[in-house]
Amino acid sequence: MEKLTSETTLTLPDWLIERALPERLASEAEQIELVLELARLNFEHDTGGPFAAVVVESESGRLVSVGVNRVVPLACSSAHAEVMALTLAQRALGAFDLGAEGLPAHGIAVNWRLCAMCFGAVLWSGVRSLVTAGSGPELEELTGFDEGPLTPDWKEALAARGIRVRDAVARERAIEVMRAFSLSGRPVYNGRGG
Amino acid sequence: MEKLTSETTLTLPDWLIERALPERLASEAEQIELVLELARLNFEHDTGGPFAAVVVESESGRLVSVGVNRVVPLACSSAHAEVMALTLAQRALGAFDLGAEGLPAHGIAVNWRLCAMCFGAVLWSGVRSLVTAGSGPELEELTGFDEGPLTPDWKEALAARGIRVRDAVARERAIEVMRAFSLSGRPVYNGRGG
Repeated sequence: MEKLTSETTLTLPDWLIERALPERLASEAEQIELVLELARLNFEHDTGGPFAAVVVESESGRLVSVGVNRVVPLACSSAHAEVMALTLAQRALGAFDLGAEGLPAHGIAVNWRLCAMCFGAVLWSGVRSLVTAGSGPELEELTGFDEGPLTPDWKEALAARGIRVRDAVARERAIEVMRAFSLSGRPVYNGRGG
Repeated sequence: MEKLTSETTLTLPDWLIERALPERLASEAEQIELVLELARLNFEHDTGGPFAAVVVESESGRLVSVGVNRVVPLACSSAHAEVMALTLAQRALGAFDLGAEGLPAHGIAVNWRLCAMCFGAVLWSGVRSLVTAGSGPELEELTGFDEGPLTPDWKEALAARGIRVRDAVARERAIEVMRAFSLSGRPVYNGRGG
């Protein structure tokens, strides 16, 4: 029989690979600033949906990885910004557990609250903190994206596994990105033709 | 500054790439048979945890992709069997939506109930059906794996998005694989040294 596909490669878009990025994002505000900018640039470049994430070392703020949504360009429904950033951080460090002994603590910053899948992806990643710019019903209302059902106690579930959550620290600016995406008329990519 | 890591490749293990696989898995029973066998072989070969998944065309049973857990070997906490199988199916078809117009309907079969992340990954994949061999507290009890909190209405949430669920169709045999994994003394790989 024909061989089944046995590998796939996940890549950042060229504009992001070529972009000069800061070595450190010392404050939460700088992390949020960057993910909001990358989320907007990602859809403006037609390289994915309006989502971005960064993984940093918690203490030093060293930028370990960036991720943007790559679902449509890579034909991969799990290539959300969080999965990209976490996967690339783990690849860079050679560790499936970003909280493993011998590593500095890591955190992730994102421009919108986790979808159902990325909630689990963050749970399993080993990061010690999560900060979101925006959170709430506006994403689904403005764009038509389906975030899926999160367990109602999602923040507690993260906290119970040692992941500190700061939610919706730049809500209005995060909504502004979603509004810009919606006004751009670009397609929403939920599965099943939705 | 040093360039950040910008890509990663996800691969199946050699033994699985080299294995002769059936072109069709015409019945649910055949799909379950295969995922139970691959789940066991995966930990016995030390190429990942005791989890496997297949994506098939619903009508014909054509085998589109296989996936096994690759978290530790690939240093990638999201490389669960379901994510691997869905990603490879999407790669093979060049479609992020396995339920897109113009494609035949697809289903996924797994040897154990979805973790919190894979619940979301299945939601976004476009598959129209999910069948699990095992489900319940035994996985966490026997192995120490953390499955994470699923929304209590996970089956309804899948059904609401057009995904038919058949849960725990070979429960005792699925538990047997977990028992064998546990007795083998191989490590559990949840993040944060857990």
